[in-house]
Amino acid sequence: MSQVKVGDYLFQRLAQLGIKTCWGVPGDYELALLDLIGDAGIDFRGNANELIASYAADGYSRINGAGAFVTTFGPGELSAYCGHAGAYAEYCPVVHVVGYPGVKAMENRTLMHHSLGTGDFDMYHEMVKKISVDTAVLTDLNTAASDIDRCLNTMLYESRPVYIGVPVDMSHQQISGEGLKTPLRRELPPNDKSEEDKVVKEIMSMIKRAKKPVIIMDGSAVRNNLAVESNRIAEITGWTFVTTCGANEALPNYSGIYGGAGSIEEVRKVVEDDSDFVLWIGSFRTDFNSGEMTDFVDEKKTVDLQRFFTKIGSKKYDVGMHGVLKSLLSKVEVDSSIRAKSSKVEWDPYPLPEAAKEKKELKQDFLWSALDKMFKPGDLVVGETGTSAFGLTAVRFPKGAIGYNQTVFGSIGYAGPSFTGALKAATEAGTVNRGILITGEGSLQLTPMCFADLLKLDLKPLIFVLNNNGYTVERLIHGKTASYNTLPVWDYKQLCTVFGPEFPSKYYGPIKTCDELEKLLDNPELHKGDCFQLVELILGELDAPCKSLRDYGPQKLFETYADPYTSPLPGSVGKVTAKIEEFNSRNAPKEVGTSMGG
Amino acid sequence: MSQVKVGDYLFQRLAQLGIKTCWGVPGDYELALLDLIGDAGIDFRGNANELIASYAADGYSRINGAGAFVTTFGPGELSAYCGHAGAYAEYCPVVHVVGYPGVKAMENRTLMHHSLGTGDFDMYHEMVKKISVDTAVLTDLNTAASDIDRCLNTMLYESRPVYIGVPVDMSHQQISGEGLKTPLRRELPPNDKSEEDKVVKEIMSMIKRAKKPVIIMDGSAVRNNLAVESNRIAEITGWTFVTTCGANEALPNYSGIYGGAGSIEEVRKVVEDDSDFVLWIGSFRTDFNSGEMTDFVDEKKTVDLQRFFTKIGSKKYDVGMHGVLKSLLSKVEVDSSIRAKSSKVEWDPYPLPEAAKEKKELKQDFLWSALDKMFKPGDLVVGETGTSAFGLTAVRFPKGAIGYNQTVFGSIGYAGPSFTGALKAATEAGTVNRGILITGEGSLQLTPMCFADLLKLDLKPLIFVLNNNGYTVERLIHGKTASYNTLPVWDYKQLCTVFGPEFPSKYYGPIKTCDELEKLLDNPELHKGDCFQLVELILGELDAPCKSLRDYGPQKLFETYADPYTSPLPGSVGKVTAKIEEFNSRNAPKEVGTSMGG
Repeated sequence: MSQVKVGDYLFQRLAQLGIKTCWGVPGDYELALLDLIGDAGIDFRGNANELIASYAADGYSRINGAGAFVTTFGPGELSAYCGHAGAYAEYCPVVHVVGYPGVKAMENRTLMHHSLGTGDFDMYHEMVKKISVDTAVLTDLNTAASDIDRCLNTMLYESRPVYIGVPVDMSHQQISGEGLKTPLRRELPPNDKSEEDKVVKEIMSMIKRAKKPVIIMDGSAVRNNLAVESNRIAEITGWTFVTTCGANEALPNYSGIYGGAGSIEEVRKVVEDDSDFVLWIGSFRTDFNSGEMTDFVDEKKTVDLQRFFTKIGSKKYDVGMHGVLKSLLSKVEVDSSIRAKSSKVEWDPYPLPEAAKEKKELKQDFLWSALDKMFKPGDLVVGETGTSAFGLTAVRFPKGAIGYNQTVFGSIGYAGPSFTGALKAATEAGTVNRGILITGEGSLQLTPMCFADLLKLDLKPLIFVLNNNGYTVERLIHGKTASYNTLPVWDYKQLCTVFGPEFPSKYYGPIKTCDELEKLLDNPELHKGDCFQLVELILGELDAPCKSLRDYGPQKLFETYADPYTSPLPGSVGKVTAKIEEFNSRNAPKEVGTSMGG
Repeated sequence: MSQVKVGDYLFQRLAQLGIKTCWGVPGDYELALLDLIGDAGIDFRGNANELIASYAADGYSRINGAGAFVTTFGPGELSAYCGHAGAYAEYCPVVHVVGYPGVKAMENRTLMHHSLGTGDFDMYHEMVKKISVDTAVLTDLNTAASDIDRCLNTMLYESRPVYIGVPVDMSHQQISGEGLKTPLRRELPPNDKSEEDKVVKEIMSMIKRAKKPVIIMDGSAVRNNLAVESNRIAEITGWTFVTTCGANEALPNYSGIYGGAGSIEEVRKVVEDDSDFVLWIGSFRTDFNSGEMTDFVDEKKTVDLQRFFTKIGSKKYDVGMHGVLKSLLSKVEVDSSIRAKSSKVEWDPYPLPEAAKEKKELKQDFLWSALDKMFKPGDLVVGETGTSAFGLTAVRFPKGAIGYNQTVFGSIGYAGPSFTGALKAATEAGTVNRGILITGEGSLQLTPMCFADLLKLDLKPLIFVLNNNGYTVERLIHGKTASYNTLPVWDYKQLCTVFGPEFPSKYYGPIKTCDELEKLLDNPELHKGDCFQLVELILGELDAPCKSLRDYGPQKLFETYADPYTSPLPGSVGKVTAKIEEFNSRNAPKEVGTSMGG
């Protein structure tokens, strides 16, 4: 291959990763670079601001396997660090491309705009290293191609974001395009065969001895693209199958959500007390999905599969889950002796709270059971951190529906823009039937301009906004009536016409009663999905998704750490646990269904 | 004083700095802390997102002398780093308070939400050190008070932002409140008297020898709160007085804007060629205000006054401008021999472009001359980076009107939220008649939710939105017709009712012709200022503020560095200068008036 421009090299590499849409905000240091993007077959889709761009790239990467966005040096990139860090926390492979001042200007310490006025140009690069697995600023033509390749390969290897700075005077310089012939390394290197065999053999012997095995499918299974294999092993074995996210909830042995003391008691008991073997596929613990770190599964009976290692009991082996899980699957497939040793945990499915319905005014308990019936195969569902994410744990997705939220990083304002990116990727791939966003009005207020993107890209989303007059999750954590948890009143009815007056959109609402919601969900118009649709739901300020969350679950636990001056210190698991045991000794809540995450 | 809570200590210190309003977004790690804010007499005013909060604190600090905002660990603080860094670049004393996870949770490396899921908790703190003059995370009760005091004193000393992390379990712990009796150090330490005397004596002898002295008032004069003294010295001496910002433009010897080759030729000549002494009060150079670094004032004839040093010729003395300028002023006041050695530079004031008016459709040339007549004493005017800031250099403020933009950092989206903070501070201080924001629709799209703040705080702003169908300044720099410089169409008419349906607001527009604008500006309704008023102006995609900018000025220069593949490398001043000389050899543009900045 002959000479190519630096920018062409970069964009051709991104195209090789299946990236068809690149997000961002144009800035003067990157304009010349952007002139080249179309030549690689990539559309640049500018967003209203850089935070939105970074979230969109994160969502896009969750569907496509890689995402990218472009910002400008200084203000642009800094505005995107939240989304960049979120991709790091959640193992999303995202390329953050940054337009830099010219090499000579930097060498001369010229006081360029967007700098700190100090003559330094490396401070932002130093900052971003803390939230990236690799970075490069392409100041040297001799290494530009290899810097790009190294960053992208590291991103694929670690499944976390990288940062590539392109000085304004470099993007159109010629370099050899020879490297483009060598494919990027999309697969992880294989495990050492003999070590893998040894580990799989040991796991199989634990399995054979087990009388009550349990499988926990967790976030790293999804983020490592092993959802199919994880569900397959659950399907073949028929063992008790619980999850934090990603499980095929239609399997007969699917038994619900496990999250420590946040689980329903029947699930907690079978996982923690009754089981004698736990295959934990990709544990991905945070306080959010572990009942505030109250998950107690005896390490001795546990096998934890991770991207780069496998842990059997307390012993760690240098063999990653990709090889181990596949090898294990091939063994399990041909060994009928190990099947159906344990079975589904019996507990009530999410009950329709008639009381809520009778009371007429819309309640979260009613909402989630009503939405539960609405999801179809092929739906892409994104839930915002807050009552939306907690509520979605109480619905059951049909096979072929996918959903996620931002479980570890938990940034409010994330869901809308991330949904935009994910829905675009899924639309490009032809793998989506309908895109559904569920968010709260407090979260929406951080990034409402993503609606302009959804409208102009003609993605025809169905959006539910839970308007509960403030930050409800925060009210439940601390400050139930505090003024800092209130929000300005907005007119959501006009939001679509403001952000996209040229495009069709429909508004339904404000929905204030259970009856109105039922009627809306029965309206075939809503399910046509022929344009942008926004549903505004009016909910109580302190109404939370289900009894467990409202009275016993995370909120109560949050309160123990958010109110340190009245409660035990956070992180002091023993004390929190004592409190949970007290909860559990009362009527344990039943209403926990399926989950989102990772 | 007896014991106080850590949070009380912090907020009482902020109250001592005159802070009455604190901005931010509540997050669960900071809720308990926020319970204490009211006790110090400070209102917490939550913003839609953290970027907006950081900009509001920056604007507030520019009027009040200090500003503060509160975010949560991780997503919250990261979303605000752009505004935090901008405050650093522009010497704004801002306190960024961050709610942290509990000390025990951090010690135990608990995988808390908002972390990166790695067990580390110091990465954000390490990042923010690059854009802060001091930082502390209050994990130790023994040092919490002194950490707070040290950070705040450093902020005042350096006039740049600091970062104070407050773990969720620390805000309500008791510490001694004894330190609160010792005032924070709001004044810089005095210069060494004998060194200051020596320096002032040397400057005075240069002044006495000078036949054509010039005063340049620049950004550091404003950021060091020496605008009064700077203008006073210009008034007394009667010397040729030019500025980049902050000057009293009503003085008879006021002679316009100096910005290297970006100046009108008469101004450039008198400053660079004719002068034999230049008193440069607080030079604050960036590519934006120096004609792309084309300012050539012979160092030998120049005295540069800065916060921490004074430079006479090439020699730097450790005496700061506060003492030197005041001492110089006292000498100049009693020495009539040095007065009126030079006088006003004669050049046409900003001409009303009849041609533009005749052509009916609204043009920027007409716009700025029309707005020029609108400003009144007591106006607070904020211009967004882009054609708004460039256009405002062409208007002349009456005495007692103040204005600024973000000259060094140049982040688009900054103006609206910063204006909100500044107008709130000025309203609290009773020093403002009317708040006027001038922004472009591209910039507005980054942070439109600041309108919700302006509405709910009842600040009654007058806002001009220059809707020119895209990023006009970027089109002029590079990519005149490129799709990446286009923006979604919004319906600006509805923006106020969406963001504040409960509050009165008026919309005027879309204004498409010069006649319509004249009529509007003659409408007494507009000048009543009894509610939020939004004026939408429709302008040409490639229309820029004046001939100098459009054909010869910054845009042309930008193009030379933004198009490196067709032009000399950026930062290569010699080559750019050659180009400028070529421009200047043609008809030099006349239309440059007064300026904004710092």
